[in-house]
Amino acid sequence: MDWLNAVRWDSNGLVPVIAQEQSTGDVLMFAWMNREALALTAEQGRAVYYSRSRGKLWHKGEESGHVQTVHEIRLDCDQDVVLLKIPQHGHEPGIACHTGRHSCFFSVLRDDAWQPVDPVLKDPETIYR
Amino acid sequence: MDWLNAVRWDSNGLVPVIAQEQSTGDVLMFAWMNREALALTAEQGRAVYYSRSRGKLWHKGEESGHVQTVHEIRLDCDQDVVLLKIPQHGHEPGIACHTGRHSCFFSVLRDDAWQPVDPVLKDPETIYR
Repeated sequence: MDWLNAVRWDSNGLVPVIAQEQSTGDVLMFAWMNREALALTAEQGRAVYYSRSRGKLWHKGEESGHVQTVHEIRLDCDQDVVLLKIPQHGHEPGIACHTGRHSCFFSVLRDDAWQPVDPVLKDPETIYR
Repeated sequence: MDWLNAVRWDSNGLVPVIAQEQSTGDVLMFAWMNREALALTAEQGRAVYYSRSRGKLWHKGEESGHVQTVHEIRLDCDQDVVLLKIPQHGHEPGIACHTGRHSCFFSVLRDDAWQPVDPVLKDPETIYR
């Protein structure tokens, strides 16, 4: 697949991925993909990431039901970062973060401290059983 | 600075940064910061990145005039990715990409190929002299 070869994979064979909610424009999370994950994401139309901590593919939503379908896959000018535009499924509003929040970027720098400013939409205990 | 210590810097002392335009929600670019870059960004209210290729700080807009001021600095749930919400200055609409485009993510995967779909707003030759 030529388009997969066009991606400039890093020394670990990975590419950083930004997941952006299509409807709101909110940046929901940041993760990594290897070649297989990106190929599966394009083929299945569902986000599949590569978990660096677990060393294996991570089908987003496989436990939580918080699946991300693919609206658009974009690549940056250096061909080394992917932007995934997604509808975030399984809850309304969408939950992408394992803390039960809409977005992983829920902390803001204020008064020289990181302050969580976005609400927990669902108790993580009830998301992952 | 405690808030700088709270960031989980990678083995190279860097953190990935997503720059998102405040007004439109568009993801404009992806770059890296080291501790000094993030400290300067917060202190000066202007985006300062760390160029991995040049091995030094990169004051965004220093050559192009396409400065990014800081609206908000966010950190993700794992404390290892920064989301920078910015007004993009120097051109209307904003140009963040060195190719003269609004966003670095101007290529979309269509028909098994990366296709540039966003226009060049300004000739790069006239941006960098």
